[in-house]
This record gives sequence, structure tokens and C-alpha cells, in this order.
Amino acid sequence: MRQSTLFTKTRKSAPKDEVSKNAELLIRGGFIHKEMAGVYSYLPLGLRVLNNIIHVIREEMNAIGGQEVALPALQSSKVWEATDRWRDDAIDVWFKTELKSGGELGLATTHEEPLTALMTEYIQSYKDLPKYVYQFQTKFRNEPRAKSGILRTREFLMKDLYSFSRDETEFREFYELCAAAYKKIFARLGIGDKTYRTYASGGSFSKFSDEFQTVCGAGEDTIYVHKEKGIAVNKEVCTDEVLADLSIPRGELQEEKAIEVGNIFPLGTRFSDALGLVYKDETGEGKSVVMGSYGIGPGRVMGTIVEVLSNGDGIIWPKEVAPFAAHLISISGGNADVVSEADRLYDLLTAHGISALYDDRELRAGEKFADSDLIGIPIRLVISEKTISEGGVEVLDRKTGATTLVPESGIIEYLKK
Amino acid sequence: MRQSTLFTKTRKSAPKDEVSKNAELLIRGGFIHKEMAGVYSYLPLGLRVLNNIIHVIREEMNAIGGQEVALPALQSSKVWEATDRWRDDAIDVWFKTELKSGGELGLATTHEEPLTALMTEYIQSYKDLPKYVYQFQTKFRNEPRAKSGILRTREFLMKDLYSFSRDETEFREFYELCAAAYKKIFARLGIGDKTYRTYASGGSFSKFSDEFQTVCGAGEDTIYVHKEKGIAVNKEVCTDEVLADLSIPRGELQEEKAIEVGNIFPLGTRFSDALGLVYKDETGEGKSVVMGSYGIGPGRVMGTIVEVLSNGDGIIWPKEVAPFAAHLISISGGNADVVSEADRLYDLLTAHGISALYDDRELRAGEKFADSDLIGIPIRLVISEKTISEGGVEVLDRKTGATTLVPESGIIEYLKK
Repeated sequence: MRQSTLFTKTRKSAPKDEVSKNAELLIRGGFIHKEMAGVYSYLPLGLRVLNNIIHVIREEMNAIGGQEVALPALQSSKVWEATDRWRDDAIDVWFKTELKSGGELGLATTHEEPLTALMTEYIQSYKDLPKYVYQFQTKFRNEPRAKSGILRTREFLMKDLYSFSRDETEFREFYELCAAAYKKIFARLGIGDKTYRTYASGGSFSKFSDEFQTVCGAGEDTIYVHKEKGIAVNKEVCTDEVLADLSIPRGELQEEKAIEVGNIFPLGTRFSDALGLVYKDETGEGKSVVMGSYGIGPGRVMGTIVEVLSNGDGIIWPKEVAPFAAHLISISGGNADVVSEADRLYDLLTAHGISALYDDRELRAGEKFADSDLIGIPIRLVISEKTISEGGVEVLDRKTGATTLVPESGIIEYLKK
Repeated sequence: MRQSTLFTKTRKSAPKDEVSKNAELLIRGGFIHKEMAGVYSYLPLGLRVLNNIIHVIREEMNAIGGQEVALPALQSSKVWEATDRWRDDAIDVWFKTELKSGGELGLATTHEEPLTALMTEYIQSYKDLPKYVYQFQTKFRNEPRAKSGILRTREFLMKDLYSFSRDETEFREFYELCAAAYKKIFARLGIGDKTYRTYASGGSFSKFSDEFQTVCGAGEDTIYVHKEKGIAVNKEVCTDEVLADLSIPRGELQEEKAIEVGNIFPLGTRFSDALGLVYKDETGEGKSVVMGSYGIGPGRVMGTIVEVLSNGDGIIWPKEVAPFAAHLISISGGNADVVSEADRLYDLLTAHGISALYDDRELRAGEKFADSDLIGIPIRLVISEKTISEGGVEVLDRKTGATTLVPESGIIEYLKK
């Protein structure tokens, strides 16, 4: 994409009421726009990043047998009353609204209830199990405070998968499969080395659950990390008893602030019992389906990447997440040869399916480089009189700052390796 | 995808309160699930269709210079008060809700206001224009009645593009470009021959607008079609004066019921004036940006396709819309050779990137064919003892019912042509 046509521009500063680093950098870079506290729009660069994150999650969910659906945000009270979660003191972040034709509706904060009810139409026999159903769906949460940029918002996309299994054994098998998929996802998204599977409270559903926590000073959670074992324990449940169960001496743990980027939850038969999701086993006996839920918020992951992978100059996107594979910058100073050389390289990249943001604007080199640092595309390609006279393209690695001169004839091969 | 793993099943009947043909067939085929009147979930087959429709629209919007964003559903009153559309008698389908921290929010029915406000941060000069911004975003409309299946729902996805131009001439140029893109979209979606650009009322924004109306008995609108000229006039504006303007004799028009599948609207400076979207022209003078809006509802298009392209046995999806390119059906009767031959063909299709739904279930041929007719994938491939003995695969065209025996060695080439 030619940067001259992009409608967003970088900004010197974010709105004054924006205190989080992720929102500040994302707003300055033109990735997002703040509509109100806790509510953001995704602009072209930001939507590309978000879609890349979604793409990685979708691939890994499909790989473990997930089937994608899309449930609505509007919720009738019926199924939520069946599980006693329609009350504001059961779910304290409901947004509710009124139908013109009469009756109260809620905006989904999660989807256990409607999906469990839906599955009663398709699950009758043990032959119909197990099944794994997921979606990327907008959730609404009436957060009293929202000061963490896109880490905690009032409206956000969520990948929520729900597993439906015959029994505890079958459930646990998938639970571990999904935990492994989550590890893979966070590795592909560039935060694998900072993200720990974390033993946590199961809330009202079960004794324990697993969180995926990314170590980061901006995090709201406190966890105790065992680096060697690559696991962690949430402060909430870090009792002597739990540590004994996990065979971890307290002295080997390190306290860290962290952001919860994913969670996996045993739900038992809490929802299937309440909503009648029952199957007939091999003997014809009726049994409740054993469920689990598995969440990742793509927007929160995006914010976490920015918190963890940025420096004073701007963002440093990991390869699979970056809005473009390369940032091509022409420093022409009015020299038409440089412009036509850069145009030619842009066409070459496009022809080879390498997505590039092409800074073809008439600006000083310093301004272009500052914008490029802020936007954070991992590879920068510079074409100037100097690089042409040296017979190549200057390639800069945004992360290390290292530069290499690559002959134009070898640039595609260089970028594809 | 192996049909044995798909969690949905076909149903003999739709819910009793479902009166529309589109919802009845889509529910019976397992494409959608009714949550309440006017609110549906998209199940795996339905989501694939919806995403194919979105893909076509996105390609054509990108081709005319559209830049994709995603604005939130939650709306603060501020920008809507500026245009005097916060009042329930200005927009009569608002859903409103309350913030825990105080204040009323609305659920977006459309996005002129927030996007115009957003663009004030990026448009200052004539050099920043023109710009075309679009999204696929969920709209909420508090419809008093909802009885048309997915043609008119309370929560639905909308592709809404907004154009920002320097003046009327530049605006009109894009308006016609987008009208041509819409023609292309509806042709690719298989309803081009039944869809007419229709002269219509401009509502409160301008004298006239253009609707894209698909002729269909289930439609809520009445239009007058001029088949030869390939245009139509909405009954609302079909006055002698308008017909004279268009040089159409009334006698050549045919009255039809139709579904509005798209619309394009001149907005003039109604929103830019109210929200201060002003640019400096070449002389430094401040001018209001001239706007237009361009909508297509992918869900409504999906419903329209079903209304228009189905027969007594089920749906007939057009090629670019179908959930899979081919429906592979094995009729094994317990014969392991037939199963392994069908497995082999499924692998072959997958290896060549041809998406297939593979009915590997142990069911009678009649049941499989009835399901296949209902689901409506355009090409059916049948493997049975009979086809193997004849040395090929039976290929059935869902639309014409014509069958051909194609040798397996030639099947990929046959499907790719």
C-alpha cells in the first residue's frame, strides 16, 4: 500500500486522558482511535494487525478440530435465568437494553448459555461427541473503570471455544491439546518466551483453571514464575498446598506482574445440567455433557505485544503480526531516478506476494524514519541516491537496528528466507 | 470437511414461528440457528457462506480504493446530538443502554456520525482528499417486527463505506465507480440478472439515492422495472416528473416486488457541517467535505440468494458463495473399496485446494442425496460400486440436475475449468 494514500497519519501525542503505553503508541501510530474510555476503533493498520492475530488463532483452533460459528450479541434472558446468571450480582458487567416490542435484552459478556442451549439441538447421542465449537465474537462488558488502553475494554473481540465431551477423561484430553495449541499461538504471536501457563482459580465453575499470563509491568495480575519449569502460579492460589501439589519449592518462584492473554476453564456439567444438554451413552443412559471453555482476546493480545515489544521509538511487531512484511522507504530528495527505482521495487514486492507499506510521501528522511520506527514493521527497505550508487537496497531490522546492503537482484530471496 | 465430524445436522422442519422461506431452508440445512425473533446465529456452513459473500464485497471495495476499519457498536451521545439524531424520533430503532459509571450509550444503527468525527483528525487539507473508508460491522436495530428471516434482523453485519470528497464532481465520480462495483458484486454473488439499480428517495439527506433491488416475491419493496434498460424506479418516487427525467415511458415498466440488497446515498455536507469536517482548499479557504454512504448487508444478501435461488428440494448456491466447491458423497453399502476410493478422492481434492464437504456418514443413498439437495453445494460427486465399475465419478450439477461420468484421472481438471 502506498503510504500517501493511507488516510491515517502518525501523531506527535495521544489524547491527554490516555495513560496506557499500548494505547498511546497505537493511537500515535494510527492503529486505533479512541471513541471513549474503554472503546476504540481499529484503523487500517490496526485492523491488519488484529486480523493477523485472528488468523493465527483460527489456524490453531481449526488444527485441533474447532468448528467456527458466530453467535449474536443480543441475548434474551431465558437461558441466562436457567443458570442464574441474568442477575447483575451474578454477572456484574451486564449491559442491558429494552426491545421496542417489549422485554429486556442483554449484550453478551460471554456465550456459555446460548451455545449450550444451541447444542441441545445437535447433541443427542454419544456418537455426536466430542465437539469443539468456537467463534470470534464481540463481547460487551460494562467495566466501571477502563484505563488500560486495549487491554481491558468495554467492547472487544473474543475467541471463545467451548468443548463438549462425553466424560472427564475425554474432556481432559482436549484440555491439554488446547493448552498446547495456546503455547503454539503465543509463540507464533511473538510473546511465547514471556507467556506462562499459570495455575489459577477456577472461579465458580471448578477448583482450578489455567491462565496464560504474559510477564509485563503493565499487567493487573501478580503471578509467581518458575522459569526453569516454564510454569507459573497465580498469587490468588499460591498456597503451600498448591505448591506441594505442583512440587515447586516456594524459594524457586519469582514474583512478576503479568497480563492474562488467555485462559482455559473446566466447566464440568454446570451449564449442561442447567440447560439440559444430555446425551445417551452406549447403554442408552442419559448423561450430562462435560464442558470446558477456552478464551483468547485478540485485541488484548495486540495491546500486550505493544507493551512487551516496543522501545522508546515505537512498536516492534513480530513477523506474523506485523501489518505489512516490509516498510519500503524512498529518500528521493526530488531525484526522479530514486522514485522510479523505489516504484520498481514496490511492484517487484507486490508481484512476489510480499506485502509492503511504501512510504512514497514527499517528506524528509528523518520524518520518514521516525514514522517507520513508530509503526514498527519488522523489516525496513531504504532506497536513496546512496543505496543506488552502492548497487542495492538498505535493509534494516527494526528489532536489532542492524543494516545490510542487499543487491536488488537478491532482495526477494532475502526477504523470503 | 468430513460431514461425520460436522456438529450440525439437517432438520425435517424449522421452528413453527418461522414464516420466511430463507430462514426455513437455512435452519433446516444447519446454516443458521434462531435465537429469538430477528436474531440468528451463524453455524459452520452458514458462516462459510457469509464469509464468502464478505470476501467478494471486500475485494471489490479494495479495488475502488476502500480502506477497511472497524468502528465500535457502543456509541456515546455526543456526536449524535451534534447531528440531532440521538432522539428516538430521529432514529426510531435505537437500542440504548446505561454505563455503570454513568451516562447513556447507544448501539450503532449506522456509523456516519462517529466516522465523520474520526476523520476530522486526519483530513485537514485538499491533499488529504478524496478518501474512502469502509467496514464490515455489526449494526443493531430495534425493529418492532422481525418476520423475514435474515432479510431484516435486529442484529446484522453491514458493509458500510463512506466517501469523503472535495466537491460534488469528485463525489459523483466515485458514486458511479461504486455503483459499477455493486453491479459486479451482485453478478459475482449470483443475483446479478435479477438485481436492478433503482432510482429511489434520498430520505432526509438528498433528493434521490440509488438502491440495488433484487426482484423477488418475498421483497418488502415495490419497484417498477425497465428490463431492456436494466434499471428500475422505486414506487415511492415513480412520478411522471421522475420518469420524464429518466426518459422512461410508464408503459414500458413492469411492477415487481423486490428486496433492497444495497444502497448508495449522497450525503452532501449534512454530516461534515454538523461535525466540523472541513478542509482547506488550494487557496486556503475552509470547505466542508462532500460525503456519500454505500451499504450492503451480507446477511440480507445471503437470505436473498436463498429466496431467489432455491427449489422444492433446497438451496442452490452460486459458485462464489457456496460453503464448499463440491459435495463428495460415498454410497458404500458397507463396501470397503468404495470407502477407500472416496477417501482417496477426498484427499485428492484437498491436495488440489478444492474445498469439499465429504459425506462419509453411514446413511442410505436417499438420505444423503436429500441432505445434499437441501444444503445446495453446486457440484455433487458420487462414488458408488456402480460408478467404480464404470470407471469414474458421477458429477451432478445441483442447478440443472444434469449428471456426467468423469474418469477420476480427469476430475481435478473438470472441476477447475
